Amino acid sequence: MEKLTLYIGNKNYSSWSFRPWIAMTAAGIPFEEVLIPFDFPAGNPRFEDISPTARVPVLHHGDVRVWESLAIIEYVAELFPDKGIWPSAAADRAVARAVSMEMLSGFRALRGACPMNIRRPKRVIDLPAGVMDDVARIETIWRELRQKSGGPFLFGQFSGADAMFAPVVNRFDVYDLVRDEETLAYMNAVKAHPAWLKWQEAALQETWIVPEDEA
Amino acid sequence: MEKLTLYIGNKNYSSWSFRPWIAMTAAGIPFEEVLIPFDFPAGNPRFEDISPTARVPVLHHGDVRVWESLAIIEYVAELFPDKGIWPSAAADRAVARAVSMEMLSGFRALRGACPMNIRRPKRVIDLPAGVMDDVARIETIWRELRQKSGGPFLFGQFSGADAMFAPVVNRFDVYDLVRDEETLAYMNAVKAHPAWLKWQEAALQETWIVPEDEA
Repeated sequence: MEKLTLYIGNKNYSSWSFRPWIAMTAAGIPFEEVLIPFDFPAGNPRFEDISPTARVPVLHHGDVRVWESLAIIEYVAELFPDKGIWPSAAADRAVARAVSMEMLSGFRALRGACPMNIRRPKRVIDLPAGVMDDVARIETIWRELRQKSGGPFLFGQFSGADAMFAPVVNRFDVYDLVRDEETLAYMNAVKAHPAWLKWQEAALQETWIVPEDEA
Repeated sequence: MEKLTLYIGNKNYSSWSFRPWIAMTAAGIPFEEVLIPFDFPAGNPRFEDISPTARVPVLHHGDVRVWESLAIIEYVAELFPDKGIWPSAAADRAVARAVSMEMLSGFRALRGACPMNIRRPKRVIDLPAGVMDDVARIETIWRELRQKSGGPFLFGQFSGADAMFAPVVNRFDVYDLVRDEETLAYMNAVKAHPAWLKWQEAALQETWIVPEDEA
C-alpha cells in the first residue's frame, strides 16, 4: 500500500488536526506526519499547495487527497477495516457517526469561546451564552454512550467518535467547565491514552503562539 | 427488514430534512415519511419524543435511532450497498464525504442569510459579508467534480453528495446568487430529478409560514 501522509497544524492549537491524528495513532495505522505551522495573520501559503480547502488536516494517499477531519477518519476506517475505528455493530456505528457529526457541525458557542490549547494552565473565563448548553449536550452524549457500552470509551474501545471529541476533552479541562464525576472519568480515560500522551508531549514542546486562540 | 421511518420538518423550509429524504427517494429506498411541522417560537414538543437531539431529521429503524442528515445517509448506504448512494471507487467516496462534510459543517454565512425556501419567488437580497465566498467555494466543488465525472451529477449518477447540496440548489436559485453556466447546468439537472420534483410539489402545497426563514 502506498504511504499515508497526514498534514497537520500546530499540535497545541489545531483541534481539527488532532481528530484524525489521534484516530489513526490509537488504531495503530502507520502514517507519516507533516506539521505546517499556522502563520497568522497572513495564513501559510503552503496550505494551498497541499489541500483543496487550504486548510489542515489533509491526508495524501498516492493521488488521493482527503480533507475534513471526519472524512479522513472514514477513509482510513475503510482502508483498515480490522482496526476497529468504527464500532462493529451497525446500530452502534450509526450512533458513532451521528455524535461525530454533531461535533463536526455544532457546539459553535463552546468552540468559539474556548479554543483547544494543550499548553494552557487551567483557568476559568467568562463564558458567553450558549457555551454551557453545548457542555450539557456533550456530557449527555458521553454519559449515555458509556452507560450503554460500559466504557471506558464511548463505545468500549477507543473509536473514531472518541477521536472527534478529543479536542473537547482539552477544552473541558483547561477552561474548567465540568464537575460531573462520570464526565471526569471519561476525560481521564482519554487523557491516559498513549496516543493522547504522545500528541500532548509534542504540543508542550511547541513555542508558537497564536494570539487568537489564547482566550 | 424492519420498516424505515424518516421524521422530517416542513418541506418548504427544512433543509436538513431534505438531504436524507432526497438521498433515499432518489435511490429508491422504501421508507415511511412522517412530517412534524415546526411550531415556532415554542418549538414542537413532539421532536423530543422522536429524536435524541429534539431535531429533525431522525430515522427510526426498529430500535435504532439515527440523527444528523449525513449519518442517516451513511446508515442507509450501509443497509442498501447496491443502491449507489456513495460512489463505488474508494477515492471518489472519500471526496464525496469530504465535500458532504464541508456542507454539513460550513457555509454558515450563506445558510444564515439565505434559508432554504422552496416556495419563495426569485428575488435578490442584501448579502452579508462571506456569503459570496461560500458561493464561490461551492461553485468550485461542483465544477471540479462534474468536470472529472462528466456529470450530470457530482459523481455522474445522483449520490449522497448531491443530496447534501440539494438545499443549496434552492438557495442559489431563489436568492439569484449565481450566473455561471456550469453552475446553472448542475442546478437544472438537480431540479429536474424526479425526487426533487416530488419534494417540491409537496412543499408548494404547504401553508405554514416560518417568519424566521422568510429573508
